[in-house]
Amino acid sequence: METQQNVTTDLFIKIAVSNWELQNTRLNGLLAKLTDEQLAAQTAPDRNSGTYLLGHLTAVSDGLFTFLELGDRLYPHLDEIFLKNSDTSGLEKPSIADIKSAWNHVNTVLKEKFDAMQPADWFTKHSAISADDFAKEPHRNKLNILINRTVHQGYHMGQITYLVKKIGV
Amino acid sequence: METQQNVTTDLFIKIAVSNWELQNTRLNGLLAKLTDEQLAAQTAPDRNSGTYLLGHLTAVSDGLFTFLELGDRLYPHLDEIFLKNSDTSGLEKPSIADIKSAWNHVNTVLKEKFDAMQPADWFTKHSAISADDFAKEPHRNKLNILINRTVHQGYHMGQITYLVKKIGV
Repeated sequence: METQQNVTTDLFIKIAVSNWELQNTRLNGLLAKLTDEQLAAQTAPDRNSGTYLLGHLTAVSDGLFTFLELGDRLYPHLDEIFLKNSDTSGLEKPSIADIKSAWNHVNTVLKEKFDAMQPADWFTKHSAISADDFAKEPHRNKLNILINRTVHQGYHMGQITYLVKKIGV
Repeated sequence: METQQNVTTDLFIKIAVSNWELQNTRLNGLLAKLTDEQLAAQTAPDRNSGTYLLGHLTAVSDGLFTFLELGDRLYPHLDEIFLKNSDTSGLEKPSIADIKSAWNHVNTVLKEKFDAMQPADWFTKHSAISADDFAKEPHRNKLNILINRTVHQGYHMGQITYLVKKIGV
């Protein structure tokens, strides 16, 4: 039986997941407009390259497997290059084709895992908060992490957009 | 009596509003680091100035009074300058002091209105969707708009950040 409680819960999950998917769709649309050469350029003088930012977003999305307790990460080695170090670290980066492939793979598997989650799972604590803190701040659940990461992706998309020649706001 | 339904609903609202407030706090922190002269500069060559983006974000946040049906807008005239026209339109812009004042005022009044909303209000349709469409897509409610605008703010914050001299990711 569908209770009002279930309806509300499903609605909120739909809001969070659909906003997440919207950002992925937008970023994929942006990537489709850029050649590899354009993506490799700096988004602004002395600022991160599009390649670095795509690797960074891939590493952060891959981290969701951990935060949302969805199993092992697919590309944990990306953290060293794209999270713990800067674009100018001198560390060898994967090719753009490999970064794009990882980006798409992470999103495909995340989508499968999201679809398999039970609604109640989203309201449990994420892996980076202690049980004590979660008892005090019960809104810091898995849905919250997804929304936080959606905003984070928007933030860097605002920068990657600068690689496209003509843009509006 | 607090029902499980109420607890879940309150939790959703807390997640959405706290992420919104986090973006405002971050943008205010960024603004505190920038002189007016720095804010007036372009965020990247031939890209929107910080002033324009702050006016743009103020106009979009002011638009929430309409979308969330919270009463009259405070600064509807900003739309012409910061939404309907580009940074290089030649339209006279308000002073930075006036834009900052509008930005703060909009956020203060929005906060008051949010606090006065009943939980159920957030799950009603926003003003820009028809009743028919809302019946088909009930997740397009007021909470959804707030999350969408939170991501939008993150997007432009990623650009305004480029005005600060030294940044990480």
